Amino acid sequence: MLEELKKAVYEANMELPKRKLITYTWGNVSGRDPETGYFVIKPSGVDYDKLTPDDMVVMDLDGNKIEGKYKPSSDTPTHAELYRKYPEMGGVVHTHSPQATAWAQAGRSIPLYGTTHADYFFGSIPCARSLTAEEIGGEYEKNTGLVIIETFEKAEMNPMYTPAVLCTNHGVFTWGKDAAEAVHNAVVVEEVAKMATLTEQINPDVKPAPDTIRDKHFYRKHGANAYYGQN
Amino acid sequence: MLEELKKAVYEANMELPKRKLITYTWGNVSGRDPETGYFVIKPSGVDYDKLTPDDMVVMDLDGNKIEGKYKPSSDTPTHAELYRKYPEMGGVVHTHSPQATAWAQAGRSIPLYGTTHADYFFGSIPCARSLTAEEIGGEYEKNTGLVIIETFEKAEMNPMYTPAVLCTNHGVFTWGKDAAEAVHNAVVVEEVAKMATLTEQINPDVKPAPDTIRDKHFYRKHGANAYYGQN
Amino acid sequence: MLEELKKAVYEANMELPKRKLITYTWGNVSGRDPETGYFVIKPSGVDYDKLTPDDMVVMDLDGNKIEGKYKPSSDTPTHAELYRKYPEMGGVVHTHSPQATAWAQAGRSIPLYGTTHADYFFGSIPCARSLTAEEIGGEYEKNTGLVIIETFEKAEMNPMYTPAVLCTNHGVFTWGKDAAEAVHNAVVVEEVAKMATLTEQINPDVKPAPDTIRDKHFYRKHGANAYYGQN
Amino acid sequence: MLEELKKAVYEANMELPKRKLITYTWGNVSGRDPETGYFVIKPSGVDYDKLTPDDMVVMDLDGNKIEGKYKPSSDTPTHAELYRKYPEMGGVVHTHSPQATAWAQAGRSIPLYGTTHADYFFGSIPCARSLTAEEIGGEYEKNTGLVIIETFEKAEMNPMYTPAVLCTNHGVFTWGKDAAEAVHNAVVVEEVAKMATLTEQINPDVKPAPDTIRDKHFYRKHGANAYYGQN
Repeated sequence: MLEELKKAVYEANMELPKRKLITYTWGNVSGRDPETGYFVIKPSGVDYDKLTPDDMVVMDLDGNKIEGKYKPSSDTPTHAELYRKYPEMGGVVHTHSPQATAWAQAGRSIPLYGTTHADYFFGSIPCARSLTAEEIGGEYEKNTGLVIIETFEKAEMNPMYTPAVLCTNHGVFTWGKDAAEAVHNAVVVEEVAKMATLTEQINPDVKPAPDTIRDKHFYRKHGANAYYGQN
Repeated sequence: MLEELKKAVYEANMELPKRKLITYTWGNVSGRDPETGYFVIKPSGVDYDKLTPDDMVVMDLDGNKIEGKYKPSSDTPTHAELYRKYPEMGGVVHTHSPQATAWAQAGRSIPLYGTTHADYFFGSIPCARSLTAEEIGGEYEKNTGLVIIETFEKAEMNPMYTPAVLCTNHGVFTWGKDAAEAVHNAVVVEEVAKMATLTEQINPDVKPAPDTIRDKHFYRKHGANAYYGQN
Repeated sequence: MLEELKKAVYEANMELPKRKLITYTWGNVSGRDPETGYFVIKPSGVDYDKLTPDDMVVMDLDGNKIEGKYKPSSDTPTHAELYRKYPEMGGVVHTHSPQATAWAQAGRSIPLYGTTHADYFFGSIPCARSLTAEEIGGEYEKNTGLVIIETFEKAEMNPMYTPAVLCTNHGVFTWGKDAAEAVHNAVVVEEVAKMATLTEQINPDVKPAPDTIRDKHFYRKHGANAYYGQN
Repeated sequence: MLEELKKAVYEANMELPKRKLITYTWGNVSGRDPETGYFVIKPSGVDYDKLTPDDMVVMDLDGNKIEGKYKPSSDTPTHAELYRKYPEMGGVVHTHSPQATAWAQAGRSIPLYGTTHADYFFGSIPCARSLTAEEIGGEYEKNTGLVIIETFEKAEMNPMYTPAVLCTNHGVFTWGKDAAEAVHNAVVVEEVAKMATLTEQINPDVKPAPDTIRDKHFYRKHGANAYYGQN
């Protein structure tokens, strides 16, 4: 079942090592099927060079395995929470990509310092709060998803306008309309994180870019008045 | 038309990912035809691995498309302004190469710290002022070109002696006698930016190199008394 | 003799340049045979692109060469000490991988800043004390092993729970149940070291991650209640 | 003439881009023929992917071209001065490798922070003083060589024990018993420079390694009592 989606999710997963976002098996990508509502995700801890599209696992949003010979990624409950809350998300990615993970470990949101950032994210990339001891001791991966959602809800941010979050002391989640776009955004977060670190090194007193730059570049690529690209 | 120039501009564009100056489609190269005055530029947002010489777009300096099946790069008006003002420019490049873009995001010119820099740039690589809200809200890409020109005119700098500029909160533009030289200069800016960041890290009190070093190395490679290379 | 182990140790050694952990011959991997108690190690100073499985040297734990046409790695006595003390170690690696070696040169343990670290190491990666002049002037490589052991014994740390150590002013040793796992841990230390440096750069006041995060992630992958992966 | 040496020098030059020490043509390697006293050097400003062994230029120590269809590297007089002063040098390299050049631009010697450094260099890698305006305005490249020599003579350092120097605001020279060893040392300087920068970032109060470590590691690889490698 869902052969085409499995292939797309497989290929999106294979982009992670190719784009140097992961070491060993430190990441996972999923994609949602709009018809059944199921999502397809990488199995847990299987080497990337042995993966095939057939190894992808089909899950429903309540965490039941629908099909697959392997156990799904241990982060599956985080993906499920995001899909349940945000119907517009068609793909979710988790990585420990080093430049962005360093911001997560530092417990800081990535400020919007320029147009590279603004082309993709409408404002700073938020760093979610730490989980409590109870949240960690309970359904940890599910609670990770809930804290991500809390971050966007409290700040009244549209997650499709800022399709990435840092999890304190942990790593990065990104998303998009499908698995490929979610991976694309994971690549951008890593590049933006690297530039932000360098920017603060070069000018410790730097301020975020003005909102006019943010608006101009974001809407040059998104929404009704976009004029970047061929559409 | 302009088949040879299209091929040269295509090849110059393909250098950007090969030299790791860009992620995805974050850059563009153009080249000018000295006879017609037209310039040839990459189409907007097309994947590099699908580009062909034939996809290049032919433009005139007033921003009219002369030939091409695609929309030109969204940064085309910046290129056009530079060509209009400086007849000696035969190629222009825009990138978000990370080390140089970090200086642009930091809002700082890159000081001349050594001979690597002086071999190509006769002084610091300037960081142009921020655009005003009006300039951003109006013809943004054209105004980007005008602010670059203002930077060189106000400082009475010869842009062919310092063939690069940083745009605050944005990225880098470089140029040269043709598209290939413009890309060459984009590679050098990235390397020089990286070295400058490290230099300040190693010695926070470092001063720019003396003018004698700048003059010696710049004129070793440029002008009537150059003696570097085989000419 | 020990043809299979020689092949495994050869392949583990070849991972070092492939994973960019070493320059030239700056590293060595060994693996222990559980039946004979011998261990197999890379020869000293032989270029990686000329190595074959047959070039591996068989040693006993008292430092006697059992078989091999080459001299063993000059660091062999360090490996021997670790194997003598810890029967559960089946493989040992030494590298000068740059990010981790910088922490060793700085004389600092690597704090546990996040889950990437906690997935593999149950607490900070310790930096062993400097050797005394007498220890350096005497059996230097053997004493290096003894100081590593002292580090774990004094702190009452289980070396299989924190399978890595930094040697002040020197480099890194890692280990595991076999040579492949020891190399895997060497890759992780380098990545974790890089992230830790960036983390402190982004937030100079950062504190280590809470123990709840450490426990959760370490035991997600290790011990009776592990649920990461397919087992 | 000197076909074998030309081939060796050609191959040593080709290591520079392969080892990522240079961008474009920013480096040069020479090697000396012990019988004739001539040295062979790369031509000036020729692309590496077009070089052949036959393009190498044969020079005598007084700066006369003995054979070759090209002009020699513009840095040839620096090489000549080093060969004239130090008969034990059989190969010389110049690069602008970024990590080491940053130290040169910062005007600082690279402190000996660990065994990676001590395995090759018996103490800090010195940064030569700036050239005076007169030295720059006169025979610049020759004077660069003379200032390098002055650096070693004043400090009573054996250049074969510390086969590298940084030239303030410029770049790096290394040497060795032949061209291949000189390039090997250039690779090591770059790696050591990178580690030193990171070391000071991780611990701003770090002190150089004790002399006992320096002596142990240097003499483990060099001199009558060396025991590293197969000899």
